[in-house]
Amino acid sequence: MADLSTLVQGIQTGDMRALARACRLIDERDPRAFELLKQIFTHDGPAYVIGVTGTPGAGKSTLVDGLIRLYREQGKRVAVLAIDPTSPYSGGAILGDRIRMQQHFTDEGVFIRSIATRGHLGGLSRSTGDVLHVLHAAKFDVVLLETVGVGQDELEVTRLADTTLVVMAPGMGDDIQAIKAGILEVADVFAVNKADRVGADATAQDLQQMLSLRRVPQGVSKMQGHTAVSTLQKGPEAEAGEWVPPILKTVAHRQEGLAELVDAFAKHREFLMTTEAGRGIREQRRVSEFQAILYQALIDEVDARFADQVREKLQEVVGGRVDPYSGAEALVRSAIGDENET
Amino acid sequence: MADLSTLVQGIQTGDMRALARACRLIDERDPRAFELLKQIFTHDGPAYVIGVTGTPGAGKSTLVDGLIRLYREQGKRVAVLAIDPTSPYSGGAILGDRIRMQQHFTDEGVFIRSIATRGHLGGLSRSTGDVLHVLHAAKFDVVLLETVGVGQDELEVTRLADTTLVVMAPGMGDDIQAIKAGILEVADVFAVNKADRVGADATAQDLQQMLSLRRVPQGVSKMQGHTAVSTLQKGPEAEAGEWVPPILKTVAHRQEGLAELVDAFAKHREFLMTTEAGRGIREQRRVSEFQAILYQALIDEVDARFADQVREKLQEVVGGRVDPYSGAEALVRSAIGDENET
Repeated sequence: MADLSTLVQGIQTGDMRALARACRLIDERDPRAFELLKQIFTHDGPAYVIGVTGTPGAGKSTLVDGLIRLYREQGKRVAVLAIDPTSPYSGGAILGDRIRMQQHFTDEGVFIRSIATRGHLGGLSRSTGDVLHVLHAAKFDVVLLETVGVGQDELEVTRLADTTLVVMAPGMGDDIQAIKAGILEVADVFAVNKADRVGADATAQDLQQMLSLRRVPQGVSKMQGHTAVSTLQKGPEAEAGEWVPPILKTVAHRQEGLAELVDAFAKHREFLMTTEAGRGIREQRRVSEFQAILYQALIDEVDARFADQVREKLQEVVGGRVDPYSGAEALVRSAIGDENET
Repeated sequence: MADLSTLVQGIQTGDMRALARACRLIDERDPRAFELLKQIFTHDGPAYVIGVTGTPGAGKSTLVDGLIRLYREQGKRVAVLAIDPTSPYSGGAILGDRIRMQQHFTDEGVFIRSIATRGHLGGLSRSTGDVLHVLHAAKFDVVLLETVGVGQDELEVTRLADTTLVVMAPGMGDDIQAIKAGILEVADVFAVNKADRVGADATAQDLQQMLSLRRVPQGVSKMQGHTAVSTLQKGPEAEAGEWVPPILKTVAHRQEGLAELVDAFAKHREFLMTTEAGRGIREQRRVSEFQAILYQALIDEVDARFADQVREKLQEVVGGRVDPYSGAEALVRSAIGDENET
């Protein structure tokens, strides 16, 4: 397909319109996207992917803005993916971000794109993963993966990042409680932003305390049940050479503390690349990614190839003539054949 | 399978141990769960499923507790599913709930179970959906589906409910902003809990205002882009006979306003059962459920039947000998065969 090879070439030379077009194909789940991704895949993507998440109002967007500046000053090419899985009605936040980031729109070294949820079943993290491969192929140096909220789905997305920054602000102690462990688990680096405000030290201390709770000795953690113990045993925390997330203070709108943040990112990258624990994390990510791609490809293929049968069965199920479990079983059988055949 | 038919019988007679065992099979994704679900499925499940979600600290659990009492006083059998997709480290909240709810543990008309995330790809809402069918088969009158947080994944779960209650509390205006439209969209009924505190009226007014913003005329919503418009056109909101979520004030720990809440649930149920818009919503839910069951069955079957091939391909992908897209494509081909064959 001549068209596709032009697109591949455009991506590889970092042409912004080619990038936007590739993102659109992925967003719309165009079948050509899969072929494109096969062709542009690079096993060791050169872009360093930094997830930025945290409580609403903590100043994530201003901080991302500051990081773009800093990396641009270092001559690095930067892509920003803003993940907004909320409904179309919530246009406000993202719109605000876009206006704020407009100053970068004329900069050819910066690519900005927002991604919304598509479909069910981890669709958000899957399409984000695909877009990341496009950005790797375009040889960006840094990708900032900014989540608008802190939902489970968005935390899932940060698992695609090499390093995840969690942004907090003073006086949001309740929020930390509310968000609980989900966000602690994804954090590789913490920023207490708006650190010129009252309570920054207290917030940093709260975080410190929650982090140390996470590393309870085995006997104590048993109180939280079996799963907690086994996770602790298997997780990188239990290994020698574990990564301890640093807690840094920033005032993003004055660019204060951002250089230190970037240093912390670099240290975490080194941890991932040079230690045994880091190697394990990277391998596990590849396994998860492959599973997600496989499952999505499977679903897409069945939807495309067995569309009529799926539609027919759906009508029977909705009409109450067959239960959904038996209906699904029959379709799976006609898609992948009977057990005895394999 | 003699064992399975005993379990089916146990569920249908509402035996608590049979229910717990069925939940466990579903939780562990035991292959027998699928067979069980086929056998117990009832097309028009008798249980009325009420989703309860809202900001942390709004008093959701106390309110659920109050609703259990109220329904029990009416002689109804009640099941509670507490959805907690956070990590094992977060044991606290759920543990607190359990202790608080212990008073109901000796009541044979109350079944309480917590559900955590399993695996990827919408696993939480899928296993919750399966458990709901067990509760239908056990002929509970009411199921309260309580989410611990307000993540995207948990909002997804509330889509399984017939009626979703969103709980807020005074002085959480920022939270409403933070949570934004996602939570507004799932709401069928609002409760401003802790209504004896200062600011309850203001919170109710804020909600009222956000709800009216949701119903902007088409010309205005265009500012939010194409998707917003098309959703507005297709959504039940645009139809005559639309449901307008009532905003009710409650003081859950004193049982105040709960009878009015239960009335609002009954009205929403009537809307679903008797109007054209309600029929559309119910049908769409059946379609979504069937798709989710089908996709999960497909993935499970490929994982089981092609385990060796998946493992082999995975090693090639992780080892960098094949890209994940080509690897997935090859597996899909060997599972479903070539396009020309169908």
